[in-house]
Amino acid sequence: MMSRQVHESDGQRVFVAVLETGDEAMSSLKTLARQEKLSAAGITAIGAFSDAVLRYFDWDRKDYVDIPVNEQVEVASLVGDIGVDAHGEPALHVHLVLGRRDGSALAGHLAKGHVRPTLEVVVTESPAHLRRREDPATGLRLIRF
Amino acid sequence: MMSRQVHESDGQRVFVAVLETGDEAMSSLKTLARQEKLSAAGITAIGAFSDAVLRYFDWDRKDYVDIPVNEQVEVASLVGDIGVDAHGEPALHVHLVLGRRDGSALAGHLAKGHVRPTLEVVVTESPAHLRRREDPATGLRLIRF
Amino acid sequence: MMSRQVHESDGQRVFVAVLETGDEAMSSLKTLARQEKLSAAGITAIGAFSDAVLRYFDWDRKDYVDIPVNEQVEVASLVGDIGVDAHGEPALHVHLVLGRRDGSALAGHLAKGHVRPTLEVVVTESPAHLRRREDPATGLRLIRF
Repeated sequence: MMSRQVHESDGQRVFVAVLETGDEAMSSLKTLARQEKLSAAGITAIGAFSDAVLRYFDWDRKDYVDIPVNEQVEVASLVGDIGVDAHGEPALHVHLVLGRRDGSALAGHLAKGHVRPTLEVVVTESPAHLRRREDPATGLRLIRF
Repeated sequence: MMSRQVHESDGQRVFVAVLETGDEAMSSLKTLARQEKLSAAGITAIGAFSDAVLRYFDWDRKDYVDIPVNEQVEVASLVGDIGVDAHGEPALHVHLVLGRRDGSALAGHLAKGHVRPTLEVVVTESPAHLRRREDPATGLRLIRF
Repeated sequence: MMSRQVHESDGQRVFVAVLETGDEAMSSLKTLARQEKLSAAGITAIGAFSDAVLRYFDWDRKDYVDIPVNEQVEVASLVGDIGVDAHGEPALHVHLVLGRRDGSALAGHLAKGHVRPTLEVVVTESPAHLRRREDPATGLRLIRF
């Protein structure tokens, strides 16, 4: 992963990160969040993965179902945010849409995805904190002000 | 819905809004637009819905077809904008992509969607006006400068 | 295509562009990039196309497969970036998700798409250069710092 700050204005920093073949998207973005001390940021990205695991939240079971994707796919849209958890660690939340060879689409929550050959990411920080706390009703860590 | 301004720079304000179980997305965003007097803004969001109604614009009939979604879905991508109509009222335009339990995707124009358990929204205002006017050819309210 | 600068802050300019029926999205965005001398920018858009050609990168053949779309579709999500190539010309990279009449989704890399009736685009410039260079392994022009 290469990254670079491309803008700064009144405490709002903008970074471009370029992930490369073999990089795992969630862990790379978490590394960037730690390096740059990001506590509130929005993420958008496009690129391609060699394989990925999506997730769907099963409301009745209050747990995620894994959806493995074992093929080269276009990352047609990746939207997410970076906050911090109760321990001050980066908390990432990323959803995405994948495009298959025939143009059909898959969509869900990103558990992990291996980049091939590139993922182009724009991270826009806000000079604030987005804190996530565990929601007793679902067990999910939700943003709370 | 909770919301908070997280940045301001030369008249450009950035808000984070967090919608909660039961909130209807379009009406909540319209409320936010009114409260904060937003007349030109971009929206991105991720989260999940318990149910939704998408729309597809039928070009031949010049009218929308409703596509009801009666199941829990991930909101994999929500992109939209806020402008104002001829009466100065907020005019929202939102498209989105939903992910189903098996990872398959649905996509279209958002008529309405009920949040469950969360929708995390970033609203970036621009210090300008985006005015929508009715287009005689389609009956749609399109942005006109 | 109509366009207008809606914000400027410390060298970061934000433009809104509205494409109209018959406009081809990739060539219109390239025209905007040339006019405004954009060398690093992020793009998001929503709207609708009368027809489009998506692409999927076949990793084994190291070449794109075309996926023609010959029907009116909602542009549910369009995310991309603008950089410059080795000759200083604008280099666009755009991925998108389309919604069909039944709500099913198509996703991939955008080769071309004809707008009908509108495509609403937000372009956020960063005061930097994103340079693309040909990657010997894939033949693709990837962003390199």
